[in-house]
Amino acid sequence: MHVIVWSDDAGGAALVGPAARLHPDGVAATLGTLVQQQLPAASVTVAGLHEPEDGLPDGLLARADVLVWWGHEAHEQVSDLTADRVERRVRDGLGLVALHSAHYSKVFRRLMGTSCDLQWRENGEDREVIWTVDPAHPIATGVPQPIDLGGHETYGEPFEIPAPDQLVFISWFTGGEVFRSGCCFVRGSGRIFYFAPGHETYPVYEHPHIRLVIGNAVSWASRAR
Amino acid sequence: MHVIVWSDDAGGAALVGPAARLHPDGVAATLGTLVQQQLPAASVTVAGLHEPEDGLPDGLLARADVLVWWGHEAHEQVSDLTADRVERRVRDGLGLVALHSAHYSKVFRRLMGTSCDLQWRENGEDREVIWTVDPAHPIATGVPQPIDLGGHETYGEPFEIPAPDQLVFISWFTGGEVFRSGCCFVRGSGRIFYFAPGHETYPVYEHPHIRLVIGNAVSWASRAR
Amino acid sequence: MHVIVWSDDAGGAALVGPAARLHPDGVAATLGTLVQQQLPAASVTVAGLHEPEDGLPDGLLARADVLVWWGHEAHEQVSDLTADRVERRVRDGLGLVALHSAHYSKVFRRLMGTSCDLQWRENGEDREVIWTVDPAHPIATGVPQPIDLGGHETYGEPFEIPAPDQLVFISWFTGGEVFRSGCCFVRGSGRIFYFAPGHETYPVYEHPHIRLVIGNAVSWASRAR
Amino acid sequence: MHVIVWSDDAGGAALVGPAARLHPDGVAATLGTLVQQQLPAASVTVAGLHEPEDGLPDGLLARADVLVWWGHEAHEQVSDLTADRVERRVRDGLGLVALHSAHYSKVFRRLMGTSCDLQWRENGEDREVIWTVDPAHPIATGVPQPIDLGGHETYGEPFEIPAPDQLVFISWFTGGEVFRSGCCFVRGSGRIFYFAPGHETYPVYEHPHIRLVIGNAVSWASRAR
Repeated sequence: MHVIVWSDDAGGAALVGPAARLHPDGVAATLGTLVQQQLPAASVTVAGLHEPEDGLPDGLLARADVLVWWGHEAHEQVSDLTADRVERRVRDGLGLVALHSAHYSKVFRRLMGTSCDLQWRENGEDREVIWTVDPAHPIATGVPQPIDLGGHETYGEPFEIPAPDQLVFISWFTGGEVFRSGCCFVRGSGRIFYFAPGHETYPVYEHPHIRLVIGNAVSWASRAR
Repeated sequence: MHVIVWSDDAGGAALVGPAARLHPDGVAATLGTLVQQQLPAASVTVAGLHEPEDGLPDGLLARADVLVWWGHEAHEQVSDLTADRVERRVRDGLGLVALHSAHYSKVFRRLMGTSCDLQWRENGEDREVIWTVDPAHPIATGVPQPIDLGGHETYGEPFEIPAPDQLVFISWFTGGEVFRSGCCFVRGSGRIFYFAPGHETYPVYEHPHIRLVIGNAVSWASRAR
Repeated sequence: MHVIVWSDDAGGAALVGPAARLHPDGVAATLGTLVQQQLPAASVTVAGLHEPEDGLPDGLLARADVLVWWGHEAHEQVSDLTADRVERRVRDGLGLVALHSAHYSKVFRRLMGTSCDLQWRENGEDREVIWTVDPAHPIATGVPQPIDLGGHETYGEPFEIPAPDQLVFISWFTGGEVFRSGCCFVRGSGRIFYFAPGHETYPVYEHPHIRLVIGNAVSWASRAR
Repeated sequence: MHVIVWSDDAGGAALVGPAARLHPDGVAATLGTLVQQQLPAASVTVAGLHEPEDGLPDGLLARADVLVWWGHEAHEQVSDLTADRVERRVRDGLGLVALHSAHYSKVFRRLMGTSCDLQWRENGEDREVIWTVDPAHPIATGVPQPIDLGGHETYGEPFEIPAPDQLVFISWFTGGEVFRSGCCFVRGSGRIFYFAPGHETYPVYEHPHIRLVIGNAVSWASRAR
């Protein structure tokens, strides 16, 4: 299985403060290590927006089974050509694991056909708890009920996505919000999983159950299960 | 449109304390008034378990468009014959609006094919907030975002139901729980809406937005929209 | 209820042979009459690609409840600006009834996020039969089982769309094909119905049950039911 | 992976004519060989209604991952106790692959909550063609488009099931019928796949692509993918 892990933070150069400390080589590098540890047999390539062809040339996409996409500040800097390439490959069978604000990436929005708007708020005081609502789903395998994520940025409904083909996780936030935080979609031959956790200033990718979910998601999206 | 509003509280005789004060003639009577006020053109029949044939004889079912079912303590006292009659009529086109602990009624469980187990807790300190996740759904028409229900019993995931055909509302509770609180199902020719609010010791059916949702749900289930 | 009925055939000027005889003023005019007859209380505007702003200026879209879209040869002539306007309005609540090869229109493809490719074949010898698989759906109200459409162009699976939120009709064709011919989608606040019948060289819009389905679909998409 | 393959034909004793020739030891034995060949690492137990506890004692169910169920003439001879046991185990995580007229078994009907009625006809002249509508589904892995099954009994819509969680296959029949012939459902922690092919008088379980689908389905239902 070949997995591309991509972020738009210029290999960490765009990160400051706690994010820079948590992801010294960028979020993609953090996630690349995570995927490699969860799936030791996988071949993992770390890529980013600052590389040629936005880090996602045709050749790389052609041999990949799954693309893990983390983006935040630079969605509009991804070229339309890159978005075209990725969108086509996903419908052709490339799995897509879209993390955190990847909901706002060109590729995800095009594949959804909706604005992907949501409510959000960050005040440093909120806590997120994640509930599994589809325990038979491959992505929920071994995941305890609930995941107490601790402090995190708040995402809230309404989240303008199509009704997910499978809704796996719903999150609770201290401030009164709920959010469909783990959603599966199929588009063409491609499997897509959106998973909300991942704000760069919180150590969410160190949480063992978040790591488990992401490993499961990559396996599922790769069509290995 | 002919609507039957049914409860299992013996016309209020089984209620005590705040429930008896809120529903002096039983929960079905409270809901009958609610439905009549929301849908002035509807013909409403209030019925209950303590009546002959569990209050749901064939003739009454045959001319009804929608059955609103509220139950709590007496699910097992509903006879299998009654459950058979109602289940058949729902699949034949009778709309079913199942409120609060009606998730545990024989009829609802049979139509779902699952245990309908959920987590619950009542400590008098919890608050429920209801978010719309499908704003285009007829049942969400005119419903503000969110509904702040105030104090209520806590229901939580995992809720063992089939994935709803349409998920309209998700609830948040103070204690860290989330719950799929507004769920549509189609079974045969019958439309079914499960709506969680309705614990008898809270004035939830006085809340204008809960009343709006229930009126919308009866219209939708009647196949009038 | 205000309904726009739109086609891309320049008011019939682009049609030849049997299509020109069946739709002397264009397919939109045929459909406009159909909608007006099925829904006498509706206000119907007939529009087309050959008009200013592709026949779909903001003002017209703003006051419409439903847009019926029929297109065939000129999908690429619809400007990106028009597609943007319509796409946004649909997500904002405008109902969309996409007929026949409207599956290939810019607007529909963007809202789906997929290629919307399908198999097709026209040999003048095929017959289509339409089965209802969701009899409780508003769009199936009063529709007999099956609709024998007679001769029609063949559309076949695989049809690259997202899994419909509700699948209402499946078609059978003489040559061995099946097709998901009646599909509901919700995107944002907009309801979308794709209905396959409508090749311009067959009198399908004269068929009473096709007329019934389209009337039902416009009502449903308008959020009147 | 432990798979139980079950039929209600008394080990073939209830079969006559071509069915007896095709399944000398009963349909369960035929299917047991099929599953063993498709999944060489699986441990397969062949069982039947004529055995103690209807062939499905608690101990056997407890250690199984998947139950393949083929039934035809004897649905009502399965005891309510057995149906209770199996239904509970499925919701607890046992995969269920329900073949052909297993749609009418007690267990399947209870898990669906509907009548599971369908149209059917056998005239020895019909042919079935199976189309994949969800090519990304694990059960469709490697399955060519379409499967030409040749002669088979005709099943037709309306098929009174809940809308499948995933619709994988739709069948075409010579006589004008279509049928949702490959349907996935999740109930509790159990994955359920209904697959229509399997009339005992046709050699459908010799067809390589039907064998492939059943192997894939057992893997999927076992939660191995």
